Amino acid sequence: MTKPMFDRVAILGVGLVGSSIAHAMRRANLAGHIVGHTKRAETLKRAKRIGFADSLTDSVVKAVKGADLVILATPVGAFGAIAKAMGPHLKPGAIVTDVGSVKGAVITDVGPYIPKGVHFIPAHPIAGTERSGPEAGFAELFDGRWCILTPPKGTNKRALKTLKSFWEKLGSKVEVMDAKHHDLVLAVTSHVPHLIAYNIVGTADDLRSVTEGEVIKYSAGGFRDFTRIAASDPTMWRDVFLNNKDAVLEVLGRFSEDLSALQRQIRWGDGDALFKLFTRTRAIRRGIVDAGQDSAEVNFGRNTPAKKKR
Amino acid sequence: MTKPMFDRVAILGVGLVGSSIAHAMRRANLAGHIVGHTKRAETLKRAKRIGFADSLTDSVVKAVKGADLVILATPVGAFGAIAKAMGPHLKPGAIVTDVGSVKGAVITDVGPYIPKGVHFIPAHPIAGTERSGPEAGFAELFDGRWCILTPPKGTNKRALKTLKSFWEKLGSKVEVMDAKHHDLVLAVTSHVPHLIAYNIVGTADDLRSVTEGEVIKYSAGGFRDFTRIAASDPTMWRDVFLNNKDAVLEVLGRFSEDLSALQRQIRWGDGDALFKLFTRTRAIRRGIVDAGQDSAEVNFGRNTPAKKKR
Repeated sequence: MTKPMFDRVAILGVGLVGSSIAHAMRRANLAGHIVGHTKRAETLKRAKRIGFADSLTDSVVKAVKGADLVILATPVGAFGAIAKAMGPHLKPGAIVTDVGSVKGAVITDVGPYIPKGVHFIPAHPIAGTERSGPEAGFAELFDGRWCILTPPKGTNKRALKTLKSFWEKLGSKVEVMDAKHHDLVLAVTSHVPHLIAYNIVGTADDLRSVTEGEVIKYSAGGFRDFTRIAASDPTMWRDVFLNNKDAVLEVLGRFSEDLSALQRQIRWGDGDALFKLFTRTRAIRRGIVDAGQDSAEVNFGRNTPAKKKR
Repeated sequence: MTKPMFDRVAILGVGLVGSSIAHAMRRANLAGHIVGHTKRAETLKRAKRIGFADSLTDSVVKAVKGADLVILATPVGAFGAIAKAMGPHLKPGAIVTDVGSVKGAVITDVGPYIPKGVHFIPAHPIAGTERSGPEAGFAELFDGRWCILTPPKGTNKRALKTLKSFWEKLGSKVEVMDAKHHDLVLAVTSHVPHLIAYNIVGTADDLRSVTEGEVIKYSAGGFRDFTRIAASDPTMWRDVFLNNKDAVLEVLGRFSEDLSALQRQIRWGDGDALFKLFTRTRAIRRGIVDAGQDSAEVNFGRNTPAKKKR
């Protein structure tokens, strides 16, 4: 067996992504020792039960001590406090990274606590499911998915190369970009879609003249697709919106403007305008399937009572 | 072999739903003879190639002649003209039904052309995929899905019972409700979700500072879920919005109001309000999965590069 990439890796946060990283690291022999951290006793027990790591601790200081790679994998709202606690105890030459869905705020919140000689390189794997908790993780989560690194100016080139290689060994394809651009791109491809999904599910739930039973029974008409991402982890998503405010509000403004135009077209019966939009949007779906970023199977290939691969 | 339920069934429109009905009728031996109709020569050829029906014609009059059951399965915008053409040629005692996604407008458009002695009972199977055309149909489309019948006042009880039994034999569960209520329920569970999906895909496509390549690459963050239903048939959906204007505008108004509240909560950093909504929406997902209306598998069980049933 070859020497692992890192002697000691600390994963702070033992949810879906942290747990998946642990599994994927083992698959590729990337760590001599994995230490997991969570401050909640109950979650610690659950992480232990699934064999999350070689050791588990509720102390940030103990977790990062001697670690060559430190990965922040809690909801982003907790990053600042963790960074403050771990800062003085980081090993010189170590790499500190994260998996947060926002990057500008992470640089602002974590950056100041990272001592000289420690390499801080934020990262965001574009992968996930609607499940949360340590039991939700699996080694293949990152396979074929993109991971975006947003190194601040002056980042050590060798450390960047190492982290890039680490993510590739976890199964990802890696892209490097500016944090601000990342936050705008993700507002479009992830944050605003989640917000809209949460919103429509809330609206449906509020409509007293249509019962919850009816919403559920007839959800196969389209609504059910939205409920999957509206079942995502509430804490994580609260923190995303609070920490990517500018980009989310910018994209949301455009969305609402476009929706008002559509609303007007419906009110005034402008069928041609509707048809034009509905035709244009088809092409994007084809692009996503062709790029291998979604299933080509009809209905996502989902296991309905009528599963059929056409 | 037992006698089929109907001697002669006419399906006007040979797309996804019409084609699926033809396949499902054959599976359950429901028709002695199936005749398919479309006015487009090219589509007629495609329907012929897949063995859609026992006979195919481009004449509405020939299609409905002698038919015991007539099913309108074109986009709803075409129903009025078809009804006008077929009215005088319908067989006394025949049942006329449809599969349109709106029901109030169908009663208004088709009802006046149905002669006395012919039973007109609108229907709406809540089933579909993002594909269209005769090749997209399959016999299992309706299995375990709901079909809503909206009989106008005074509908013959025996004819209603027959149509109910027909849909059950196609694999559906059947519910009967008032057309107006149907249109509101479906605005919530299908029409507005489609509109929102079309809209967000359009907004993303318009945002010049984020390239189409980036939208596609990072779509696994949530966006890709919306692109499936935004790839649905443009003609069908244009007609849905033009024909269910009131209910769609009503639900859309509530959606926009709720979205504005969310926008304000983000702007002012009201994390508690966000958390509360995001927790509430999780329960609806569980309800849909428990009711067998969606896959319990993570990520819809879709065939990503990392397919994993957890």
